[in-house]
Amino acid sequence: MIDQRLLPGKLRFLDCRTVGEVCEAISTLAVRGAPALGASGGYGVALACALAAAEDPDAGAGAAVRAATAAADRLVATRPTAVNLAWGAGRVLAAARDAARSEAGRGGGEAVARAALAEAERLAEQDVADNQALGRHGAALVPEGARVLTHCNAGGLACVGYGTALGVIRAADEAGKAPRVWVDETRPVLQGARLTAWELDRLGIPATLVADVMAGSLMASADVDLVVVGADRVAANGDVANKIGTYSLAVLAAHHGVPFYVAAPTSTIDLATRTGAGIPVEERSPEEVRKVGRSRLAPPGVAALNRAFDVTPAALVTAIITELGVAHPPYEKSLRRLVEAAPHRLHLRP
Amino acid sequence: MIDQRLLPGKLRFLDCRTVGEVCEAISTLAVRGAPALGASGGYGVALACALAAAEDPDAGAGAAVRAATAAADRLVATRPTAVNLAWGAGRVLAAARDAARSEAGRGGGEAVARAALAEAERLAEQDVADNQALGRHGAALVPEGARVLTHCNAGGLACVGYGTALGVIRAADEAGKAPRVWVDETRPVLQGARLTAWELDRLGIPATLVADVMAGSLMASADVDLVVVGADRVAANGDVANKIGTYSLAVLAAHHGVPFYVAAPTSTIDLATRTGAGIPVEERSPEEVRKVGRSRLAPPGVAALNRAFDVTPAALVTAIITELGVAHPPYEKSLRRLVEAAPHRLHLRP
Repeated sequence: MIDQRLLPGKLRFLDCRTVGEVCEAISTLAVRGAPALGASGGYGVALACALAAAEDPDAGAGAAVRAATAAADRLVATRPTAVNLAWGAGRVLAAARDAARSEAGRGGGEAVARAALAEAERLAEQDVADNQALGRHGAALVPEGARVLTHCNAGGLACVGYGTALGVIRAADEAGKAPRVWVDETRPVLQGARLTAWELDRLGIPATLVADVMAGSLMASADVDLVVVGADRVAANGDVANKIGTYSLAVLAAHHGVPFYVAAPTSTIDLATRTGAGIPVEERSPEEVRKVGRSRLAPPGVAALNRAFDVTPAALVTAIITELGVAHPPYEKSLRRLVEAAPHRLHLRP
Repeated sequence: MIDQRLLPGKLRFLDCRTVGEVCEAISTLAVRGAPALGASGGYGVALACALAAAEDPDAGAGAAVRAATAAADRLVATRPTAVNLAWGAGRVLAAARDAARSEAGRGGGEAVARAALAEAERLAEQDVADNQALGRHGAALVPEGARVLTHCNAGGLACVGYGTALGVIRAADEAGKAPRVWVDETRPVLQGARLTAWELDRLGIPATLVADVMAGSLMASADVDLVVVGADRVAANGDVANKIGTYSLAVLAAHHGVPFYVAAPTSTIDLATRTGAGIPVEERSPEEVRKVGRSRLAPPGVAALNRAFDVTPAALVTAIITELGVAHPPYEKSLRRLVEAAPHRLHLRP
């Protein structure tokens, strides 16, 4: 995986050779973004199967499945908010279990590992195709020459490729709509400044970086035509958990009559979570707030609170853009319809 | 003056020996905060008189006044939004002119310089007393044990002493109301993380630092009882220019039914500016956004926009707290009454 901690300074790849290394990469944000976490969860489980099979070739299919189950539990526990982690891990775990139960199971651990890896590969390939489809659906909502504000990074880096919110912007750009982007820097971890600005620069899409506090001013001066963000989990009623600051943007957008779109594949929609109140919000280390990059700017020892996500109520969301189409309110109905049409709707309970 | 660029790491004092050095200190934010800029403008004009008198003791009162006028123009041009700069420079310039016209004028440049310095000293002493009075008026609005959110730094550092928004919090604390403070870090220059957190720590008032993006989440979870901020200029109709991000907070506060208070001495109220639309909003270097402290985190060359202030419409402001009492809507009336009662209401046109 790309080590996102080093961007935009260095483009380096990180090889994870144990499940612990995958967990560490997720915890430390070497990899982040809901769809990318889905793929990481999937590959993490496949890795566990392969390691179990390699360690003891005679241990059989059952040992590989036990290793996969333990790995899925560990992986899902690393970050509580993004449901794709549970989705990806769950999907590959299901493939491993199916293989163990089926004809392939007689091939022992190695056959289970092959099936798990194949499912992880399918999941990853599907992610790119899904994001491209999502982008096309979303691009239809982007006016010619739109000034689009986005928060955090929901680009190719947050996925296996192409991106969700940035996928919408890319697809609009590819359709000749010439969007221009306001990039929220997205404190505390600065995914906007570090990752989204980097991606848009490579794509040649005009982008202007702003401090998160400027969104209200930009909307007041009528410089924002729409907001599009990704999501870490969408509840059955359309409440959206996403990077801290998303909720403030949604309130501001509603206040100014600016459309507020959420771009998320159906794998991010969690019908088992009825409303946003049921979404666990991760609190991360206060050090992320006390420090800015390498610099410590606050006085040492000052207390800090670092909620990593917030929940935007469905009432503030204009539409939710998925790979299978655009969901409009009432979301209970429109989201259920989309998810039921999705080919892989298994979610491991996180 | 305290060199605020070095806080919280180092508490160092900066001596300005020329008007150019005062202007440089203002432009580079060694000194910032509306009331502190008022005092800096006043002392800057007094310094110009003293330098003119010292350079040519025989040049007379006229030369000192000419130097004072030129200095006031230069000082006022350094930062367009904070009206106190014009107020402070104008007040000391008026004192210099009065001295030149009066009996004292026969004492030549030196007498004018003495009068200017005396006025600057009065202005500075008055600032502390005014802030203490403002704090007492504001403290009456703070409930017992209130969780108070503040943005940027409107503390003693932003003034000659005591503070405006922090003055309200200090006075509430001194009155035994045990307030607790959410400190917005306040990107891009991080006055909250660097200065407000430092001041509250020295005062022993419980404070928790948050990224600016967390305000919406804190209000949604009912963890904010009131917002209090300073101001760089208040228009006659109650529209408030303050640090970028203030407007977003006001929209969020209105959305959640949280009172939104502005703490500003009458010297910040500019009756000559009818509405917020007439307040010039300074744009600062994009480098402040591209860099965070010493670290450059965005890709090199990425475009960035850096509006330093925004304007909060009067309709979102619950009350404006001054040293002469609390102004409530309709502000056209309540602000005019307060300013007319203020002893020094001269504003040099910026």
